[in-house]
This record gives sequence, C-alpha cells and structure tokens, in this order.
Amino acid sequence: MDYYKAALKMHEKHKGKMATVSKVPVKTTDDLSTAYTPGVAEPCRQIEKNVDDLYKYTNKGNTVAVISDGSAVLGLGNIGADAAVPVMDGKALLFKEFAGLDAIPICIKSQDPDEVVNIAANIASTFGGINLEDISAPRCFEIEEKLQARVDIPVFHDDQHGTAVVVSAAVINATKLAGKKLSEMKVAMNGAGAAGTAIATMLSNLGIPDILICDRKGIITTQRDDLNPAKQKLAKRLKSNGPKGTLQDAVKGRDLFVGVSAAGALTPEMIKSMAEDPLVFAMANPEPEILPDAAKKAGVKVIATGRSDFPNQINNVLIFPGMFKGALMARAKAITPEMKIAAAYALAGIIKEEELSETNIIPSAFHPGVADIVAEAVAKAWKDNA
Amino acid sequence: MDYYKAALKMHEKHKGKMATVSKVPVKTTDDLSTAYTPGVAEPCRQIEKNVDDLYKYTNKGNTVAVISDGSAVLGLGNIGADAAVPVMDGKALLFKEFAGLDAIPICIKSQDPDEVVNIAANIASTFGGINLEDISAPRCFEIEEKLQARVDIPVFHDDQHGTAVVVSAAVINATKLAGKKLSEMKVAMNGAGAAGTAIATMLSNLGIPDILICDRKGIITTQRDDLNPAKQKLAKRLKSNGPKGTLQDAVKGRDLFVGVSAAGALTPEMIKSMAEDPLVFAMANPEPEILPDAAKKAGVKVIATGRSDFPNQINNVLIFPGMFKGALMARAKAITPEMKIAAAYALAGIIKEEELSETNIIPSAFHPGVADIVAEAVAKAWKDNA
Repeated sequence: MDYYKAALKMHEKHKGKMATVSKVPVKTTDDLSTAYTPGVAEPCRQIEKNVDDLYKYTNKGNTVAVISDGSAVLGLGNIGADAAVPVMDGKALLFKEFAGLDAIPICIKSQDPDEVVNIAANIASTFGGINLEDISAPRCFEIEEKLQARVDIPVFHDDQHGTAVVVSAAVINATKLAGKKLSEMKVAMNGAGAAGTAIATMLSNLGIPDILICDRKGIITTQRDDLNPAKQKLAKRLKSNGPKGTLQDAVKGRDLFVGVSAAGALTPEMIKSMAEDPLVFAMANPEPEILPDAAKKAGVKVIATGRSDFPNQINNVLIFPGMFKGALMARAKAITPEMKIAAAYALAGIIKEEELSETNIIPSAFHPGVADIVAEAVAKAWKDNA
Repeated sequence: MDYYKAALKMHEKHKGKMATVSKVPVKTTDDLSTAYTPGVAEPCRQIEKNVDDLYKYTNKGNTVAVISDGSAVLGLGNIGADAAVPVMDGKALLFKEFAGLDAIPICIKSQDPDEVVNIAANIASTFGGINLEDISAPRCFEIEEKLQARVDIPVFHDDQHGTAVVVSAAVINATKLAGKKLSEMKVAMNGAGAAGTAIATMLSNLGIPDILICDRKGIITTQRDDLNPAKQKLAKRLKSNGPKGTLQDAVKGRDLFVGVSAAGALTPEMIKSMAEDPLVFAMANPEPEILPDAAKKAGVKVIATGRSDFPNQINNVLIFPGMFKGALMARAKAITPEMKIAAAYALAGIIKEEELSETNIIPSAFHPGVADIVAEAVAKAWKDNA
C-alpha cells in the first residue's frame, strides 16, 4: 500500500482528521442563556474563586495540548510550524481514538526555546496536560524542563519519554525471554538525540547498570571535550568515564543494542561481537539499523523495530494515550520517573508469560485495553508518590 | 428560569460544552499508517512547499481561534484567563451550532498587548481566522490592529464589530420603519468602550453624518484634553469638534440613541427631548439604559435591547458565525469595512418589508439560515473588493 498517496487523498477528502463537536444542545433561548450569557457567568465566578473548578466546569481534565515548533518533524527535519500541522492533527486523532482524550494541535512559529516555553505556559488554561512533539534536541530538553517549571499540569515530550517507556517495556520482556537480568545487562546504544537520551536515562532508572551510548563521533564519555551540556549530563548520569571509542567498540560483549540512528548502523559482524543471545532494538525510521532477517542470521535472539510490517513494533501509541489518561485521572502535576516505570511494567505485563516469544515481546497498537491498563498504573504511581 | 443555577448544573454534568471528534477511522494498521506515520509525511511535504495547502490537507479553513486574555469578560470585568474559559468554550459552541465551524478556545494569561499579539500570531498555523473576545478597551484596539498586521488570516474582535454590525442591521430597519434616512440621521451614543467605538465608526461608515458619543465625562469632542488616543481618534473620525457637554445635551433633537453603558442612563425626560419618533437602542447588560415599557411611554417609536426576553434583541450570534463562515469561504485575509456593511444589509434584509414592525426589526437568534445568508454576503464583499 502506498501510504503517501493514500494519506494525501484522505487528508484532502476530509480536510484533516479532527473536528469539534457540541456536548450540549442550543435549540432554544433557554439553551442559549444557559450555555452562554447570562448563565455562563456563574461557572466563571466559581473558577475565579477557585481555579481547580476548571476541572469541574470545563473540559480541562480531558484536554491535552499537542505542541510543536516544527523543528524535528518525523524524519523530515525542521519543516516549521505550518508543515507540522498534519502530524499534530494526527497525534490529536490518536489521543481521541486510543484514550478518548480531546487533544488540540498547537503549532508554534517561534523556535526560540524561551519563547516557545512562554507561549505554551501562557495558553495552558484550557489544557489538563501538554504533549510536546517533534522538537529538536537539545532544545527539547530545555523546553520541557522550563515549561514544566512554569505550569502545574503534566508536560511530556513524547519523542523522548513515550519512546523510552515503550522500549523499556519491550526490554523488560526481551530480557526475561533471553533469561537475562536487568541488573546484569550491558547495553550499547547508537543515537543520542531526544529519544536516545531518554531511553538511556530510563533504562538506567530501570536498574540496568552498564550503558554505553554513542553519537556520530563515538561513545559519549566524560573524557570527551566536544559534548554539549545535555550530552555531558548524560555521560555523568551513566557514569561513562571510559576512553573514547567507536560504536564498534561499544557493542562488543553487550547484551542489548538500542538504535535510534540510521539504516546500516549495525552490521552482522558487530552483532557477532555481542554477548550470547543478543537483543537488538533497531528503531531507525523508515529503514532500521539492520533488517530483522539479517539480524536473525547473525545470531540475534530478539529483534524489535519501529515498523508495523515486522514483529515487535516499538510504537509510541502504546504509551502516550494511557500516560495522559492516567495523569489526568490522578490530576498529576507532572510526569514522574515512577509513573514512567509503572507504565513500562504495565505495558510489559499485558503479554502473559505463556504468550511471550521472540516475535511477541510487546502488544500490538490495537491490543484492546492498553490505554486503560497503562492509565491505571500511571495514576496509581502518581498517587502512591504524591 | 434561574440561568446561573442551570448553567452550573449543566457545566458540571458535561464538563464544559465542547469536545473533539475524529473524521477518519483508526481501526487497522493501514489506517494508522495513512493518518499518522509514515503516510502523514506527504501532506507535510506538500505544505512545506506551498503553505496554502494547509487549506487543502488540514482543517485550517474551517477552524477559528476564540482568543481572550480575560480582561473584560461579560459584565464580570478582568477575571483573567482561567475564569474566562467557560465563555470562550461557549463561543466555540455557538460557532459550531450556528455555522458548523470548529472553534478552539485559547485563553492567554498575559495581559500585555504586545505579548498577547505575539502569542496569538505565533500559534496561528492551525487557524483560518481569529475571533478576539472579551479584551478590555483601549487595549483591544491595539491588539486587533497589531495582530491583523502580523497574520494573513482575518482577525475580528466580536465585542466591537459583531455588536456594531448587528446594531447597524437593526438601525437600517428601524430607520426605514420610522420613515427616516440614514443620510439625515442624528445620533447620540453613550459608552465609548470597545462596542461604542465600533458602533460609532460603523454607523458613520453606513453614511450617518452626525454622531455624538459620550463617555462618563460627557461628549467626546476634539476640544477635550482628557481623551486617550483611541478616543481622540474617534472624535476626529466623527468630526466631533463642538463644545463640551453632557449626555443630556447630546440627546436633544436626536433621532437615535445607542447605549452601551449602564442601567438608568437614559431617562424619560431625555427621550422627550429627542426628535420625533425617536429610536432607542438600550443595550446595557443585564439591565438596559431604560426599560422598553418606560421608553414606549416616553414616546419612543422603536426600542431594541440586548435581552432575549424583550423584542428586538441585539445579539452578536446573528453575525459572528456567518462573518467567519463567509470570510473562510472567500479565504479573506482580513475583515474589511465592506464586509461588515454587506453583513449588516444582509442581516437587515432577512426581515421582509411586510414583516417589519416596531417589535420586529431584527431576526431572532434562531431564525433559520441567518449564518449562511450573512456568509454569502460577506464572501461576495471580500471577492468584489479583493
């Protein structure tokens, strides 16, 4: 199927993917006077007295802003706010379809991090949460951190943490299948942008003690003097103090490879240098770092990719709908590491022990009930730690 | 009916008044790959090449932002962005119900005019038009003008121009009924805020030659030295160069009184000083400048108010849905004076000559087809003058 052609046709036919719908009738003068003036003044007065009443009298508690500055859209790069609209509209569609949440796409023309933060913080009244999307690294780290400090609703950069949580769930199951322990795993990663950084951080939070992560110039270590502040922080976080080295050096003897880089980055020879029963997460888009057939032939135990036409698809849609649904249910003020870990274990747990196999370490995007299972775990994690 | 109580109950039950809805299914992997990655990349690429394709592949052409800073909400005053949400949500509801447009409430916390403009301009990608709402005067004039200069979609401050167009339509019909001519009318107005300023300007654009407008300190004339820049501009616009005076002075011999001020501002004595068969538009909310019974008793020919429980209700919902529908149909880049005049005549024309009476100078909010009639006229006016 030619998805590009199909997408153009569908988008033109429907003029995008989302619309608004009324929840109350406006057929009579009484309807008008209740939904609008003079009646509407009363919920306004209540909210003025107690801002939490926004959750009582408006849709805030079911609404998520999908905010992007268009600086790193899909694999298209910095295409800007206008061209990013179809993706944000698509994300809103997935929020609705998978979690019943009302999401509003907001594309911001400015790409100055402080201005993006200021704009997002200033328009937060109607939103119960903010999903940041397709913002380039390292700007995305600064924007997420500063925005969360400005607002009392959860902020979640899905390209970072959505990916990290789904990878973590799949790693939990793959590790189990390979008879390995998280606390003994050695990991090599390639790609230290938004997703790579978040995955490394989360795998570390899961208890994996030894993670080497590479950017285009090789292993990120505190001994390098060419790292930006985000990568310096990551090297410290991972206690990566060893000598400089290449990806080829990094993968030797490793149990797990995680790639968010580019096609061809992982060769069969590199796989052969890994530990016994190696696990490979090759998530470059649209072409993975190595194709599943070649990986299997080189001795890989489990391979996961980002693609829907291979088994074990790492798909963010498994997490972000439930993550926000849970956060909104619990009225969480942020997304904590505990909520992400709870979400990863909840997602991993959907595959029962007896169903677990080399081609089934993670549920499909359409597995029923995923968002609710994730949401319950996320809400509980917030409440337990609040 | 207690609308305040009813409104609280309704808002709590439904959690606000609007939700989102999907226009395309997401039931299969193919659906997902068409609506989201990888397919969605193609409309993005097209829009990157040609920004007008936003109208082809997204909902931009049917979407209106309802933007407020909460500085002058209904009669509640400066209640801020959070407490303004139910009103903007209500406006979105009316856009949907009366014109089928998808409107998104955006409440901005900043009340610095330049920052409000900058925020609105920066998030305009997804919107085909911007309805400014409940922004205090004179800030609203500056915000509307600067914002329109920043974006190539129509910007319309409804409190100003929606009111002005509906008043104009009713004035056209009332004048006809009283056997007067617009070109010979003498008008007195009370209230020179957002609505008053726009009404005076529009009545002048309609060809009414003699308009005196008062603020709390009396007649606005170029001879006063206490006027802010907006009022100075208005005095010049109306060629109001006469001596200082009170509202009582202003109404003497006048054919029409237009009030957007406060209860009790117009007395029976003042009416008796007006020209023969005087017309009174007493639109203070919730209590008009004079009640219809008292006005009639004092000799008024036609009285209009803002209230739904009296005849001749001046209700903005008669204009803003059709104004935006027409502007979006024509892909207008602004709302021109010609579009407003066309809208006023189209709205006035809905009451046929033989239906015109002292209690029927303007259609009811629920008159069928109003938005489409207004939209056609507005779209034509843009195209004729583009």
